[in-house]
Amino acid sequence: MRTEIATLGEFGLIRHLTKGLENHHPSTRYGIGDDAAVLSFPAEKEVLITTDLLLEGVHFDLTYVPLKHLGYKSAVVNFSDIYAMNGTPKQITVSLGISKRFSVEEMKALYAGIRLACEEYNVDIVGGDTTSSYTGLTISITCIGEVEKGKAVYRNGAKETDLICVSGDLGAAYMGLQLLEREKSVLNGIDKEIQPDFAGKEYLLERQLKPEARRDIIQKLAEAGVQPTAMMDISDGLSSELLHICTQSNMGCRIYEEHLPIDFQTAVMAEELNMNVSTCALNGGEDYELLFTVPIADHEKVSEIEGIRLIGHITKPELGCALISRDGQEFELKAQGWNPLQEQTDKSEEEKTETDL
Amino acid sequence: MRTEIATLGEFGLIRHLTKGLENHHPSTRYGIGDDAAVLSFPAEKEVLITTDLLLEGVHFDLTYVPLKHLGYKSAVVNFSDIYAMNGTPKQITVSLGISKRFSVEEMKALYAGIRLACEEYNVDIVGGDTTSSYTGLTISITCIGEVEKGKAVYRNGAKETDLICVSGDLGAAYMGLQLLEREKSVLNGIDKEIQPDFAGKEYLLERQLKPEARRDIIQKLAEAGVQPTAMMDISDGLSSELLHICTQSNMGCRIYEEHLPIDFQTAVMAEELNMNVSTCALNGGEDYELLFTVPIADHEKVSEIEGIRLIGHITKPELGCALISRDGQEFELKAQGWNPLQEQTDKSEEEKTETDL
Repeated sequence: MRTEIATLGEFGLIRHLTKGLENHHPSTRYGIGDDAAVLSFPAEKEVLITTDLLLEGVHFDLTYVPLKHLGYKSAVVNFSDIYAMNGTPKQITVSLGISKRFSVEEMKALYAGIRLACEEYNVDIVGGDTTSSYTGLTISITCIGEVEKGKAVYRNGAKETDLICVSGDLGAAYMGLQLLEREKSVLNGIDKEIQPDFAGKEYLLERQLKPEARRDIIQKLAEAGVQPTAMMDISDGLSSELLHICTQSNMGCRIYEEHLPIDFQTAVMAEELNMNVSTCALNGGEDYELLFTVPIADHEKVSEIEGIRLIGHITKPELGCALISRDGQEFELKAQGWNPLQEQTDKSEEEKTETDL
Repeated sequence: MRTEIATLGEFGLIRHLTKGLENHHPSTRYGIGDDAAVLSFPAEKEVLITTDLLLEGVHFDLTYVPLKHLGYKSAVVNFSDIYAMNGTPKQITVSLGISKRFSVEEMKALYAGIRLACEEYNVDIVGGDTTSSYTGLTISITCIGEVEKGKAVYRNGAKETDLICVSGDLGAAYMGLQLLEREKSVLNGIDKEIQPDFAGKEYLLERQLKPEARRDIIQKLAEAGVQPTAMMDISDGLSSELLHICTQSNMGCRIYEEHLPIDFQTAVMAEELNMNVSTCALNGGEDYELLFTVPIADHEKVSEIEGIRLIGHITKPELGCALISRDGQEFELKAQGWNPLQEQTDKSEEEKTETDL
């Protein structure tokens, strides 16, 4: 069934998409339906604001990304930014630019993904803007979160001798993307009935199509009484993010190749594609894991938390930022992170050649 | 001079655009440069959030809108939503999707307009997202404001016998758009040296290209001790907005054609275009004036405020929503407001025929 969006108009579509939405947080005083949402935060909290703009063709490819997954991911990547400040996401606004190509049912699928993410992370949808687009799909989400006063963790607080920690594992989302791109090119122009074979690679697809934000890590750190000195989420690749922390903290770092957390499926896929798996872990992007530094005195506490890997330490700035390879050689860290404003031609090729260890 | 954006990349461009930005509000604890901005509001304030998504070709036409004006307007329309809640805008985030067609200098012009608006309205730029676009320019702005607890004015508070008030005058921005569209079609394909003749129509152009948000009205109402019962800003046309207030308040209304505030230049231009000027005032859109209702007991107080016009009153819902024409006839109010999700073909024609009085 396909209902044209023009039959509903802007207000009709918004009513349709937001039907049955309820606000759960006491901080949400008034949600959708007025000139602005009204929020109320207790005096002991600070308010966090983050925003992401996702454009079809640049950030997602609808030939292999289901709209519901896209909606889920669009919301989760914003939650991830709030956790990366040591906060809790509370509300989002959702703006959509929609071309005539899309039906009401398709926008409902997209919105269902956003709503699912909000249910799972206990976030209220409090506003947005919906409009037509002459071109592709545009998604702009702003997330509002809260954090105890004085407890926000910035990128600029890393100190010499601090330990560098990473949650989960790295490079899998990037491998998932490679897998989807490969299947797309194989299937292009060929029998549409053939289903791609993703057996044994489910984890890679899940990491690419349905990432989660690491709320659990933030909770575990708080329970263990560990306040990171610096933190951010890994969306553009470990190298790029670690350089942000070191630059903003005016520090250097040493991380160790052998300590990079890499899943078995990631390693197998890298081998298949003849890519260096450490390069994928360093520069892959879209992991949405947390990268953070803790005082060395917290070594024991963080070591006891499941799902956190110590990958190196912060140094004096004069020592620069380097990776120590398995054979003990030093390689300067470079930001090869995904940069949508630079030329994108032959990007995977570039990464392979320029950052090979 | 034209500098390609690819030479700077995302982070370089952001640094370039945001150079020299300073935060002025005590509520801005941390602005651009981390995973999220950190804000801190006093306990007696509520937080307001509004967002707008503007797409090239749908919301603006760069053949006649200078980028600096576009930036200014993009910010101001968000401030207008915050004032319409009886609040004060404090911060914005600015997300841009930029195609290769644009140079660094052009994006600087756009951003200069946004910065100018922020200076004039005393608003901090605290974050955003910048990315490439395969198509046109995308601008997504979220504005954060504050309001005294319990002082937010919603759309749903209008009561029977309340007076309906409008600030400024209506229809001029729409006439400005008609003027620009006419000159564009005249100039298309003809000698580019000919400059369009806008003499005597400067006000219309200003209303279309450089609208202001009515901060002054909010201040005057507060000084006069008037708390509106319902309020919104007029972005889609008076009829459409008044119907929102009546529907959400479960009320009816009567407004009077003879009381509609219309500028002399608007009337002249409507005559030139053979359009009904009241129709333009009712359905024109983009006025960014304030529409609000006040208790009849405040009649004297609002009458004394310069720049506010009483146009009618709120009735029981059974009476419906109607305009009383100069000759005393009743016409049902219809929302002809600009709806970008319905078909846009021949729109001005539609408006002329369907809502002629």
